[in-house]
Amino acid sequence: MSRAGKLIGAGVGPGDPELMTLKAARALRDADVVAFFAKRGASSHARKIAAPHLRGGVTELPLIYPVTTEIPKCSAGYREALCAFYDDAAGKIAQELDAGHNVVVLCEGDPLFYGSYMHVHARLAPRFAAEIVAGVTGMSGCWSAAATPMAQGDDVFTVLPATLPEAELARRLADADAAVVMKIGRHLPKVRRALQCSGRLGRALYVERGTMADAKLLPLAAKADDDAPYFAMVLVPGWERRP
Amino acid sequence: MSRAGKLIGAGVGPGDPELMTLKAARALRDADVVAFFAKRGASSHARKIAAPHLRGGVTELPLIYPVTTEIPKCSAGYREALCAFYDDAAGKIAQELDAGHNVVVLCEGDPLFYGSYMHVHARLAPRFAAEIVAGVTGMSGCWSAAATPMAQGDDVFTVLPATLPEAELARRLADADAAVVMKIGRHLPKVRRALQCSGRLGRALYVERGTMADAKLLPLAAKADDDAPYFAMVLVPGWERRP
Repeated sequence: MSRAGKLIGAGVGPGDPELMTLKAARALRDADVVAFFAKRGASSHARKIAAPHLRGGVTELPLIYPVTTEIPKCSAGYREALCAFYDDAAGKIAQELDAGHNVVVLCEGDPLFYGSYMHVHARLAPRFAAEIVAGVTGMSGCWSAAATPMAQGDDVFTVLPATLPEAELARRLADADAAVVMKIGRHLPKVRRALQCSGRLGRALYVERGTMADAKLLPLAAKADDDAPYFAMVLVPGWERRP
Repeated sequence: MSRAGKLIGAGVGPGDPELMTLKAARALRDADVVAFFAKRGASSHARKIAAPHLRGGVTELPLIYPVTTEIPKCSAGYREALCAFYDDAAGKIAQELDAGHNVVVLCEGDPLFYGSYMHVHARLAPRFAAEIVAGVTGMSGCWSAAATPMAQGDDVFTVLPATLPEAELARRLADADAAVVMKIGRHLPKVRRALQCSGRLGRALYVERGTMADAKLLPLAAKADDDAPYFAMVLVPGWERRP
């Protein structure tokens, strides 16, 4: 029997193609198969970042999310649909690994920090050799684009999903020196109120497409509307005791 | 008058030289001056990571920390000594910038996330054009080396300095889905007790020199002694509700 291939979860960074690591670029050059998640009918952002590093003739394995817009997000049906999708995706990758091919799965940001890759990693790592190539996170990309020192010394830093209830957001914001609120989207009015209530609104920065040419960066207090895409984030810089 | 140079804070990543970004490598190739922090008599870790990318004949500007071992850390004297050091470091960099040279300051991990660079950035960014090259953080390097999914979906993630009082550590650990405790050093026994008290000890991983060849990774509960270097960290993975 031939030897199984290796699974590699490779972070491609936050968007700017140059914020990919040398290691991820090498993994891409050496890959037999490059897998990536994508929405039906949309191009994969990670695939676009990786494009200049792909070998001609490399096998591509797109993993297309199921259409779930008709299913409520908190329902068992939604969870089941996603679970079946990740089972299927892991199965497709396992076929390549069993055939002796090394499979690189592209991950926006860092592979093990809020990303889809973890779902296939958890399913495949017990059976196959797996390696992670750490990546620059989306939040690092955003505060670097804003050139805003985030955390220093003994600061407590926290990452909060905007989906949390307003009172919990406010409590956690008041309890941290520095914070990032992720997945803003339709939650922006609530996040704004929580920042106001926790006394953090004056420090908050709103960031959209942080490392891209069309980035949008402004103090949240100066943002007049409530329009925000899902991947927008709010940064609350710490380091208040700077000398 | 000639045009001033540009200040570039460049993350060189968590230790593995391949975890530097393409952008940092390019900044190093193009630099007129490469500055880095170092302890007297010790080589700079960031300088070692960057070495393969330095142009022959590039000007190097080591910024040597003052010897502060005789001064208590919480004293005004300690703060003043450090403050004077950062003023002096910023002054040396400003001289190069005024001479029209681009200066790359090497930063382990990410420049704006718990690092010395921020002290010179805060002093120089009001006067000079400054650019940040985001880097892979030390913590990303550690959880990637451990191949441990850290945070997913609606997880709350938090970074805690081990210097916090035990009760506060325990409270904050219990209040987060995923956590990283940094700067472990002599605080290990206290961190261990706080993890026990918050019910997180069973999930905790101890990591030393995460991305280096001589990395040490083990469940904290299996670590028999209390020896830990300053830069060791403890990871508490989240994603408890994984499907």
